[in-house]
Amino acid sequence: MKNKNVPIGVFDSGVGGLTVVREIMEQLPGEAILYFGDTARVPYGNKSEETVVRYSSQIIKFLLSKGAKTIVIACNTASAVALEKMKKEFEVPIIGVVEPGAKAAAKVTRNGRIGVIGTEATIRSGIYNEFLQKTNPHVTVYGKACPLFVPLAEEGWVEEDEITEQVARRYLAELSEQDIDTLVLGCTHYPLLRSVIQKVVGDKVQLVNPAVETARELKYLLEERRLLNECEKAGETYAVAGGTLLPQHEFFVSDRAEKFKQFAASILPSAILRPESVGVEKFE
Amino acid sequence: MKNKNVPIGVFDSGVGGLTVVREIMEQLPGEAILYFGDTARVPYGNKSEETVVRYSSQIIKFLLSKGAKTIVIACNTASAVALEKMKKEFEVPIIGVVEPGAKAAAKVTRNGRIGVIGTEATIRSGIYNEFLQKTNPHVTVYGKACPLFVPLAEEGWVEEDEITEQVARRYLAELSEQDIDTLVLGCTHYPLLRSVIQKVVGDKVQLVNPAVETARELKYLLEERRLLNECEKAGETYAVAGGTLLPQHEFFVSDRAEKFKQFAASILPSAILRPESVGVEKFE
Repeated sequence: MKNKNVPIGVFDSGVGGLTVVREIMEQLPGEAILYFGDTARVPYGNKSEETVVRYSSQIIKFLLSKGAKTIVIACNTASAVALEKMKKEFEVPIIGVVEPGAKAAAKVTRNGRIGVIGTEATIRSGIYNEFLQKTNPHVTVYGKACPLFVPLAEEGWVEEDEITEQVARRYLAELSEQDIDTLVLGCTHYPLLRSVIQKVVGDKVQLVNPAVETARELKYLLEERRLLNECEKAGETYAVAGGTLLPQHEFFVSDRAEKFKQFAASILPSAILRPESVGVEKFE
Repeated sequence: MKNKNVPIGVFDSGVGGLTVVREIMEQLPGEAILYFGDTARVPYGNKSEETVVRYSSQIIKFLLSKGAKTIVIACNTASAVALEKMKKEFEVPIIGVVEPGAKAAAKVTRNGRIGVIGTEATIRSGIYNEFLQKTNPHVTVYGKACPLFVPLAEEGWVEEDEITEQVARRYLAELSEQDIDTLVLGCTHYPLLRSVIQKVVGDKVQLVNPAVETARELKYLLEERRLLNECEKAGETYAVAGGTLLPQHEFFVSDRAEKFKQFAASILPSAILRPESVGVEKFE
């Protein structure tokens, strides 16, 4: 039986998955996070399915080698194209962000008209549509790829930025015309552009951040498998309390740990961020 | 002795290097091109030096395995951070785009104030400054990284686009204030944004496209090493003329050959584009 006190493995193509980590820390403060950001090979959104599957498999092997008890694919693209294959390849419980995001959107909508924005690969996969239809066959889904949103977020042009607003207007015009009342932020970077997106689509459209629902599903999953960590709060460093080793968050990236840290500090408290560089190509 | 009729190996992180191929085909119509675009790992501009060096070495090994007689690094980032190491690692003649671009700019400037735009890695390396100072110690160089230009070019928002123009104004304002009279397009994607950039900096600033000068230097190099192909025109397919096998252009990518082809067709005649997918990670 798996040790409950080992960490939850979380990965993303880069830094965006930290918006999911933030929600997990909020809802499951006793869990330690083992994070891998594939900063050497970011972005995944314009890569083929085959390539994203191969990268995901390498990363999960790495996270398992570090003792992860469960895996969260905190990247919409990898969730969209690789989750099912990863579930077949590995025995450990694995969840993605797409199904929780779709469920949340299906609950929120009143008029049944839902927009989904994401990377090219996520939108091309049609997977949000698939899960939304499964939850409620009466919804209509409008997808739109927004390839510039990730580089804009990484440039830090996020709050009240005129250029970002214009880009958002261009991308979102056709969704607005469809009279949607719900919009899924189908890429983990997009919550960083939340205020601009909300301004452009207007207050009547409810934004859905799949990260929130993913953390909730993760909690159910850990309870069900009796894998919840009983520690009260995961520590910033390894420490022994009452004879028990408290769990610690750990962050790994495939390139440029310093840059990751700078950007990550806008999402998580910087005190816990001490990222290390590691290559995962050997985990074939 | 090397066979003159074998191709010139050219590589880039993706599709941008085709602007260099276009110049080589113009100036050296008898040469066959063997192109590799690293579309699975694009972009290079935000990666570490170590990673770009490793990728460059893998790709050169691949190009040599296909019989290349010389190598052109048609990527400013890889030229900036990996050229010297590649020259030490391999015996075949290798040229990059930075030194030719710097020489051209040093010739063009009248007031000695030169701007350079490129990826974060190219600008951080300071290499244009180094080569420009070597050619003419009296020039002053102003560098500016423009990370959104590549995704904007790949989105196809290139001609008379209001958003691209605003992004260009934001990036280039500080260079314009420095009274530059010459601006080096230090990334192979940027010639695609040429008209917007020219509009923003004004007609008094001369744009330098390193691709033109690189093709010229390549010609000198091949003449000097007696490696010029004596064929009149490289063919679109292998063909025998007068008992000789005419050389043929070949294109390889590490991911999504179809997408590469679509974008490439805006740079080169689509008839010659039949890209094949190939992995190069094994060439360690």
